[in-house]
Amino acid sequence: MNRRKFLARTATAGAAAATFAASAFPKPAIAQSMPELKWRLTSSFPKSLDTLYGGSELFAKRVAELTDNRFQIATFAAGEIVPGLQVFDAVQNGTVEMGQTAAYYYFGKDPAVAFDTGIPFGLNSREHLGWMHHGGGLELFREFYRQYNIVNFVYGGTGAQMGGWFRKEIKTVDDLKGLKFRVGGFAGLILSRLGVVPQQIAGGDIYPALEKGTIDAAEWVGPYDDEKLGFNKIAPYYYYPGWWEGCSFGALYVGLPAWESLPPIYKRIIETTAFEVTTWMVSKYDAVNPAALKRLGASGTKLLPFPRPVMEACFDEAFKVYDETAARSPWFKKVYESWRKFQGDEHLWFRVAENTFDNFVLSMSAKRS
Amino acid sequence: MNRRKFLARTATAGAAAATFAASAFPKPAIAQSMPELKWRLTSSFPKSLDTLYGGSELFAKRVAELTDNRFQIATFAAGEIVPGLQVFDAVQNGTVEMGQTAAYYYFGKDPAVAFDTGIPFGLNSREHLGWMHHGGGLELFREFYRQYNIVNFVYGGTGAQMGGWFRKEIKTVDDLKGLKFRVGGFAGLILSRLGVVPQQIAGGDIYPALEKGTIDAAEWVGPYDDEKLGFNKIAPYYYYPGWWEGCSFGALYVGLPAWESLPPIYKRIIETTAFEVTTWMVSKYDAVNPAALKRLGASGTKLLPFPRPVMEACFDEAFKVYDETAARSPWFKKVYESWRKFQGDEHLWFRVAENTFDNFVLSMSAKRS
Repeated sequence: MNRRKFLARTATAGAAAATFAASAFPKPAIAQSMPELKWRLTSSFPKSLDTLYGGSELFAKRVAELTDNRFQIATFAAGEIVPGLQVFDAVQNGTVEMGQTAAYYYFGKDPAVAFDTGIPFGLNSREHLGWMHHGGGLELFREFYRQYNIVNFVYGGTGAQMGGWFRKEIKTVDDLKGLKFRVGGFAGLILSRLGVVPQQIAGGDIYPALEKGTIDAAEWVGPYDDEKLGFNKIAPYYYYPGWWEGCSFGALYVGLPAWESLPPIYKRIIETTAFEVTTWMVSKYDAVNPAALKRLGASGTKLLPFPRPVMEACFDEAFKVYDETAARSPWFKKVYESWRKFQGDEHLWFRVAENTFDNFVLSMSAKRS
Repeated sequence: MNRRKFLARTATAGAAAATFAASAFPKPAIAQSMPELKWRLTSSFPKSLDTLYGGSELFAKRVAELTDNRFQIATFAAGEIVPGLQVFDAVQNGTVEMGQTAAYYYFGKDPAVAFDTGIPFGLNSREHLGWMHHGGGLELFREFYRQYNIVNFVYGGTGAQMGGWFRKEIKTVDDLKGLKFRVGGFAGLILSRLGVVPQQIAGGDIYPALEKGTIDAAEWVGPYDDEKLGFNKIAPYYYYPGWWEGCSFGALYVGLPAWESLPPIYKRIIETTAFEVTTWMVSKYDAVNPAALKRLGASGTKLLPFPRPVMEACFDEAFKVYDETAARSPWFKKVYESWRKFQGDEHLWFRVAENTFDNFVLSMSAKRS
């Protein structure tokens, strides 16, 4: 029943209505469909990463605005409820209703999760969104996460990341041998086959390790976030691209029982708002990275591309690692097959209009500047 | 007052409530903030362009879902209420509450509108969203459109478009002389300075004109939409990139009085849903273009890049045209200055991680395929 009819009926049948018990009182549909709710969202990120964590602050604000403050989500930074890398478990166990994370942190549970974030030498951000929203990617992940009582949403991203900060130059593939490099997941696996010793170090501990020389190199995100950690003061070489994160998307996890308890409007609000968060975050990174890159350059940072032979050696190892992983992990195999087909098609098309346009405009811009 | 408190109060004070006049009856906040509304949206596109028009169908569906069907938007294809190129006027005059269009159609009103869609040799899609959402672009356009009683939203896009269908090869800048080319806006202005005779022809009339040789070439969108119009049957050469639309974004226009009459929730629903439409449309184009490109190739279409000297001659003319336009149009000048600064910064950054990643991956992919 809609509210207008309800009011009209109540007004004409006023005396009768007054004799109803509270439980029998006719409720307008809208009040049933938009109940008051308070949820908690735990993030893998600290508040200082204002673009990543800021995505969740925007999300909570929007959900409140879209529901006249009836659906309120309190956001918590990494460590406030659970540590940053326990978001998956906290959502799966129902400790919180929702969480913000990067799926590849849970690579150890099943390597297939890596595709939810982006894999080395994988899709760029546009292509990833194409695969997720129109190429079957999201459907696969909904099925995958259901095993863990989780419903997932694409939730912001960083764009292509940087390759990280190095104390010494990387001139040949041999320079990778014995290199203690803070890098994880598939990138670590791939690099270890070329002699790198991958190091798993939480964000806050990277700076002292790199300063003391406990590690030789560290990757983080891109100019805007890296600048905050001050790596430019202790490692002169800033390499690009971060070929292991040609795109890097965040994930919003909602616990399945919590999700299923939601009225349809609230489910839709979560879905739609996640799209706004995604565009907001990617475009914010794009807007704030250039100035940070300029400041880093002004501080003396040397910007260098990884040498092509190094990139090619890593590329070859990457696809060997994927084939081996597919042979032992059924979920990885299933997602990889969908992803690989989409990647082939996208490359065919992006090579034509998109990449030709980009290369031309960038080359002319370099000439004029 | 929230619904729960309202119900409790009504139940305990039932007899008293029954004596209220209808107008004094206490309404729950949610009913006031989510009134029943029926709006009309007129589109510049026909239903056959299922990715463009489909964006508005998705928009209307989502707005209904987010409001429990209280806010209903009926969508109309080009010509059903007003012709496709009169969306701006129809919204400005209040003929309809909202419209879907591409702003550059209204280039004649003020050339500044072109930046809302994308200008020749301009930003790519990611960069455009960065400028609109975090670089001041949207604020500038809100101010600009306010002069016309319109509130605008970014509303889908096509990605980089194709250069179009040509009956003869374009080998040198001289081949542009006298070429009757269906192309409009800034691209037409730029090309006319190199001898092209730009033709303004509505979508449905392009095929017969190209078939008869009334025109020599025509540009439309990209493989998926172009294939529907059958250009491959009458023009063998399919050029790329469409340097005049390195990005091409749609616009949602809402009439200012209609906008101002909306409760805050509905305003927010329009804003947030437009983000979903944007990602949905761009990623749908990315997902459907590759197969169309393959089918066109299989039908005998010859895919060719514009020769670099042709691109460079057009590039040089483009920026001369912009400088001349800025000298005579205050709004163009104002938007151009913001846009140009953002473009310079984005190119600096995209050249580093994003473009280096794309180029490497695409080159390896070409090698392996």
